[in-house]
Amino acid sequence: MSALGEFDLIRRYFTPSALPEHVVAGVGDDCAVLKIPAACELAISVDTQVCGVHFHADADPASIASRALRCAASDLAAMGAEPLGFTLALTLPAADENWLEKFSQGLLQTAQQLQCPLIGGDTTRGSLCITVQVHGSIPSGKALRRSGAKVGDAVWVSGTLGDGAAALALIENKIAVSQEAENYLLQRFYHPEIDFSLGVQLRGIASSCIDVSDGLLADLGHICSASGVGACIELEKLPIALEWRSSVSEQQAQHWALTGGDDYRLCFTASPQHATVLQSVHGVTCIGQIIEGAGVLVDGQTTIYKNGFRHF
Amino acid sequence: MSALGEFDLIRRYFTPSALPEHVVAGVGDDCAVLKIPAACELAISVDTQVCGVHFHADADPASIASRALRCAASDLAAMGAEPLGFTLALTLPAADENWLEKFSQGLLQTAQQLQCPLIGGDTTRGSLCITVQVHGSIPSGKALRRSGAKVGDAVWVSGTLGDGAAALALIENKIAVSQEAENYLLQRFYHPEIDFSLGVQLRGIASSCIDVSDGLLADLGHICSASGVGACIELEKLPIALEWRSSVSEQQAQHWALTGGDDYRLCFTASPQHATVLQSVHGVTCIGQIIEGAGVLVDGQTTIYKNGFRHF
Repeated sequence: MSALGEFDLIRRYFTPSALPEHVVAGVGDDCAVLKIPAACELAISVDTQVCGVHFHADADPASIASRALRCAASDLAAMGAEPLGFTLALTLPAADENWLEKFSQGLLQTAQQLQCPLIGGDTTRGSLCITVQVHGSIPSGKALRRSGAKVGDAVWVSGTLGDGAAALALIENKIAVSQEAENYLLQRFYHPEIDFSLGVQLRGIASSCIDVSDGLLADLGHICSASGVGACIELEKLPIALEWRSSVSEQQAQHWALTGGDDYRLCFTASPQHATVLQSVHGVTCIGQIIEGAGVLVDGQTTIYKNGFRHF
Repeated sequence: MSALGEFDLIRRYFTPSALPEHVVAGVGDDCAVLKIPAACELAISVDTQVCGVHFHADADPASIASRALRCAASDLAAMGAEPLGFTLALTLPAADENWLEKFSQGLLQTAQQLQCPLIGGDTTRGSLCITVQVHGSIPSGKALRRSGAKVGDAVWVSGTLGDGAAALALIENKIAVSQEAENYLLQRFYHPEIDFSLGVQLRGIASSCIDVSDGLLADLGHICSASGVGACIELEKLPIALEWRSSVSEQQAQHWALTGGDDYRLCFTASPQHATVLQSVHGVTCIGQIIEGAGVLVDGQTTIYKNGFRHF
C-alpha cells in the first residue's frame, strides 16, 4: 500500500497532457464538460471489466487498460458514432505505483490511438474493477440501431470471428498454437482493433448493427429480437482467421466463430441493393440473410449451441 | 444464485417504463443516444460506491441505490447543470432477486424524483460495486467551475454541514441521538437532497462552485488551488443542523462540519455585489471570504484538521 493520495494518484497518472478543443473541462472539476458537434446526438456506452472474470490478475496492466477501453469503444463503432472521450471508474485494492504506471501508460496510449481522450473518472478502494464509459457523436437520426433489420436483408460481419474464444483458450492453456498464432491471438484479445470508420461508412447503408461481444449467435439474435425477424447464416461462410484455424478441429473453430464472445467485430444487416458497395469495403463478409420468424438458423437448422457468454 | 440471465435481469429490473423525448435510445442497444438541448454543453460525472467502503452490505438496497444516484447527481448540481439521464454499471456477486427488486425500485424511484432517467448500463459478476454516471446540460460557457474564485469574493454553502459524518457515526453506533435526529441523519445519508435549481440560479452569480463530498476544508481547498487563492472561514458561521448538534460536543459538531464528507451541499464563491441576491436565496449561508495566498484558514488560523476523506 502506498502513501499516494487519491488526488495525487489522479494528477500523476490520469491527467492527459493535451485535450482536443471539444473538451471544455477534463479531469479535475466536478464534471467533465464536452461540446457536442452541431446537428449531432450523443452516443454513450459503459462497460465493466472485473479481475478474475474478464481478465487475469497477473495480466499485463497496459494490456488490461487497452482491452477495457477498446471493448467499450466497440459499442460506439457499432452505432456509427465517432469518439469524443471516455471516463474511467477504477476500483483498486491498493495504490500499487508499478501497476498504475503501466496501466495508465497503456490507457493513455490507447486513448491516443483511438482519438478518444480521457476526460474524467473516479478512483475508489476495493476489488479490482474497471468501468469505462465512452462518448461519441452521431449526426442526428443516423445511429445504427439493432431494430431495423428487414426480411431479405443480407447479414454481414467485419473481420474474423472466433478469435476472442480461441485467445481465451490459449490464455487458459487449453490449446497449443504456433508462435505466429499466439502473437495474433494475444493482439486480438488485448488490443482488438476498433474501426470507427466502418461504422461511419455504414450510416445510411446498414439497416441494423451490433458489435460481436457475446458471440455471433447471441448478438445476431439480439438484432433478430429487436427487429422482429429471424436470420439464417451459412456455416461455411463464417470468416475464421487462418492464423489459428488449423490449430484446432474445424468443428471447434466453427463453434468458436458462432458462439465465442469478445470478437468486437461488427455484425450488420443491409438491403441487397447495397451489396455492390459493401463488396468493395475491405474485410466485410456476407454470411447469410434475414428471414421471417425468430432466432438464428445455421444452414437452415435450429442450433443447439449455447447462446454466448452470460454473467448470471 | 438465480437462473436469471444477464439480459433477463436488465429487462426485468432496469428498463424504465417511459423515457423523455430527449432519450433517442435507452437501455437495450449498443449505446444509449441522447439529444443535447440547443446551445448547450454536456456535463458528465462518474461515481463509484463499493460495498464495505461506501455502504454496509446489510444496508437497505433501495437506500443504497438512492444514495448512489444522488451522490453522482450532486456533481451535476455543482456545475449548474440540469439532468439528462444516467447509466448504471452494476457488479454483483449473484443475481439475488430479492435484493435486485428492492435496489431497482429504489433506483427508478430516485430517478423519477430527480428527473434523471436510467438510459443504459452494464451488469457483471464480482464483488458488489455500483458505478453511476450522470449526464446533464448547461448553456454553453455557463458551467460553474472550481477555478474562478477571486480575492474578496464571499464563500457560501447551501444547507447544513457535518450531517454526513454524524450519520456515519450513528450508523457505526458511535453516537446516540434522539429518534428525530436519527430519522433526519439517515434521510440525509441515504437520500441527500440534490438541488439542481440552486446550481441553475448560481449561473452567472457564483465565481466558483464545488459539492461538499470530501469535507468542507478539502473541497474549499480544491477551489483555492484551482483558483490560485486562499480562503478564510469563520467557525461560528458554519451551518450545523439543530436536529443533532446538541447530541455531541460543540467541538465534535464543528469538526464534522469542517472535515466530514458526504454532505452533498454546494460550496461556492461570489463577488460581494451578489450578496443581496444571495441573502434572498433560501438555505444558503455566507461562511467566509476568499483571500490572497493558498489553503483554507479557520478563524485566521492554519488548521490541523485532516483534509477530508481519502481512498488511498
